[in-house]
Amino acid sequence: MKFIADINIMPLKGLLDPQGKAVGHSMPSIGLNNIGDVRIGKHIQLEIDADSEAAAHETAEVACRKLLANLIMESFHISIRQA
Amino acid sequence: MKFIADINIMPLKGLLDPQGKAVGHSMPSIGLNNIGDVRIGKHIQLEIDADSEAAAHETAEVACRKLLANLIMESFHISIRQA
Repeated sequence: MKFIADINIMPLKGLLDPQGKAVGHSMPSIGLNNIGDVRIGKHIQLEIDADSEAAAHETAEVACRKLLANLIMESFHISIRQA
Repeated sequence: MKFIADINIMPLKGLLDPQGKAVGHSMPSIGLNNIGDVRIGKHIQLEIDADSEAAAHETAEVACRKLLANLIMESFHISIRQA
């Protein structure tokens, strides 16, 4: 079966996110004064061929740990749906 | 009330995603042969002060259209939850 893994990779809470800070500081200049903290990370979609949702999740987790995320600075969250 | 907007900004379906392609081609070298298409975009979290979920969605949409997304090359999806 084909599954889609939606993965969010975000900078860890405790770490500075200079890109997010810069974007946050630009919000008032486009007329938005009600936006506080901004954090920017990556959204990755993988198309996975697997027998079950659990197997697809396992594959996505291996991809995150070995390649996609830098676990020293980032955390990841995976959600799986059928394609 | 405080809301969190989770925004996914992805390259449009019809466009090449060279970053995704490169990552996809690296998957077999970490032992994953069951991953097909890979697409990479941005995940942005905004903290929004608003009276209602609808107002928070409106704010996030303005931020996407004016600043966060390049609508020629990217599409965005917003989901709002209470902080």
